[in-house]
Amino acid sequence: MIRTEWIPQAYRDIETVAVNKKHMKQLNELQEIISDAVKELNFPGYPAQLYEPLTYILSLGGKRMRPALLLMACDLFGGDVDAAIKPALAIEVFHNFTLMHDDIMDNAPLRRGHTTVHERWNKNAAILSGDVMLVEGYKLMMQVEDRLLRPILDIFNKTAVGVCEGQQLDMEFEELDHVNIDEYLNMIRLKTAVVLGGALKIGALIGGADVKDAELLSGFGENIGLAFQLQDDILDVYGDPEKFGKQVGGDIISNKKTYLQIKALELANKQQAAELDSWTALKQFDAVEKVEAVTAIYNALNIRQYAEDVMQQYADKAFEALDAINLPEEHKQYLRNFADGLLVREN
Amino acid sequence: MIRTEWIPQAYRDIETVAVNKKHMKQLNELQEIISDAVKELNFPGYPAQLYEPLTYILSLGGKRMRPALLLMACDLFGGDVDAAIKPALAIEVFHNFTLMHDDIMDNAPLRRGHTTVHERWNKNAAILSGDVMLVEGYKLMMQVEDRLLRPILDIFNKTAVGVCEGQQLDMEFEELDHVNIDEYLNMIRLKTAVVLGGALKIGALIGGADVKDAELLSGFGENIGLAFQLQDDILDVYGDPEKFGKQVGGDIISNKKTYLQIKALELANKQQAAELDSWTALKQFDAVEKVEAVTAIYNALNIRQYAEDVMQQYADKAFEALDAINLPEEHKQYLRNFADGLLVREN
Repeated sequence: MIRTEWIPQAYRDIETVAVNKKHMKQLNELQEIISDAVKELNFPGYPAQLYEPLTYILSLGGKRMRPALLLMACDLFGGDVDAAIKPALAIEVFHNFTLMHDDIMDNAPLRRGHTTVHERWNKNAAILSGDVMLVEGYKLMMQVEDRLLRPILDIFNKTAVGVCEGQQLDMEFEELDHVNIDEYLNMIRLKTAVVLGGALKIGALIGGADVKDAELLSGFGENIGLAFQLQDDILDVYGDPEKFGKQVGGDIISNKKTYLQIKALELANKQQAAELDSWTALKQFDAVEKVEAVTAIYNALNIRQYAEDVMQQYADKAFEALDAINLPEEHKQYLRNFADGLLVREN
Repeated sequence: MIRTEWIPQAYRDIETVAVNKKHMKQLNELQEIISDAVKELNFPGYPAQLYEPLTYILSLGGKRMRPALLLMACDLFGGDVDAAIKPALAIEVFHNFTLMHDDIMDNAPLRRGHTTVHERWNKNAAILSGDVMLVEGYKLMMQVEDRLLRPILDIFNKTAVGVCEGQQLDMEFEELDHVNIDEYLNMIRLKTAVVLGGALKIGALIGGADVKDAELLSGFGENIGLAFQLQDDILDVYGDPEKFGKQVGGDIISNKKTYLQIKALELANKQQAAELDSWTALKQFDAVEKVEAVTAIYNALNIRQYAEDVMQQYADKAFEALDAINLPEEHKQYLRNFADGLLVREN
């Protein structure tokens, strides 16, 4: 006996595989599409000093991960990736607007190895070019079907507000002696994870996902983003310097507030707390000695394990959201591979 | 014999008058509506330092002219003024975002007699709060019917881009020795007139105007804005100090580029040009003497007349646009009275 559900399901699976084979683009292909599209972005020529910084900062490269994720989400739901390019560029333009303004606030001389906009031009130029860049972001984001205009702009607004809030908290936390874990996690969520979630959600809607699936994919992205950020904190102390590509202990040397630092202060006994505080207060020190001493306290308090547990919790949440999405298994596997690629555990 | 067109036309006129009597709100009423609505604007409480500057700068008052014009345009076409309040607030929030960032760029210590945001908090706060304020402007502007969402956001984007371009040109012109009249007129159009045109156009669309009438009303606003700005340049030199409320010759004292200054340099003979340049170059001078000397050159060159002619040309263009709008005569008269109120000629 043939079960009635069987044929359509099988048929759907076959179609899915076909769609999959035909459509699913690899991340590096999507990044390439964005890189090419960025090169073709044309801003007005006058006033030159207003628009040149936009072209300049966008030419400095970067992995184009956020817009590529937007395209990926569209592709996952079988949408036309070409129709998602302008909104994907909006995400990249928006991201670079935040970099332009963040660099002023952080007094950063370099961005991706090149002079920052406020150094190359001046602070006023970086403020005003950033402003017009945000508007250009909106103009690009509006290049979607009418029926998607409001939902997509709602997501974009939320994302933009989140990033501003995250940056504000990040600046405030630098001035504070103590920040608690929840505040820290909320800050990194707003500053970095919300954009990933937003980009995926917008791409999913353009790709034809319903609101529920788009929301689930957004949750996947936000939680993966949080896990990734925590991994970054962990790798700074425990990463293989050759694989990591940064100075091990850079966060410790610069007294950066990270999950590890905050958790250590939370769990430290009086003597350990005093030792951590004294390292923080020292203006002159031997970097290797400081990193070793602080890491020894982290080890004594088992901080790495705490951090990895929380990171794992976020990864689990991401995969739960993924399980619930109505997508063919191959597409979910694609996302799992993507997440596994991001979260390269070293232990 | 009764002409067939006659009855409906008369009927329409009677209705128009009734609508007029019932609906047309005076400008001060509309400003009042905006003032009240601004007080009820609620931004998130956290992070406090991000949102407090928004509430602060909006509390400093101002004439609320731009949002009131948006409401007026809606009212003129018989629309529901209540439905236009959120977009009107968007214009006011946007305007205050530009003030917050302009004040950083101009290093201004005071705004409407109160400490500027970057002085009261710091520059970073003023940058970031301005950014989130622009996004809040978009959120408010989106509170329109679906069918108007795209056209209204297109206008808002254009307005925002124009204001950024105008501010950029204004900053550049300060550093230049010579600016020509067309460049100057384009700058003031972008920096101040475009917002008036945009506000009127958005209000007209919400009020039910068709695109053509909305465009005409926008042209009215932009040209009246230009005429008003030129009047401001003229009054600085030729205004009655008691009526004008500012120091006469303030622009001359500070070497500000105005229509009068640029036109004078254009028409001056060698000797006059040398005298103007020497006054500009002087670091220490008697203010009264400088104003008298420069004004004497303006008089010799008949600069006031040139300025008034151009101002009149813009006013004429505004009234031509008004004549072409499909509105009852009473409503046009209302706009003429409004324009006459703005353009108080002194000669």
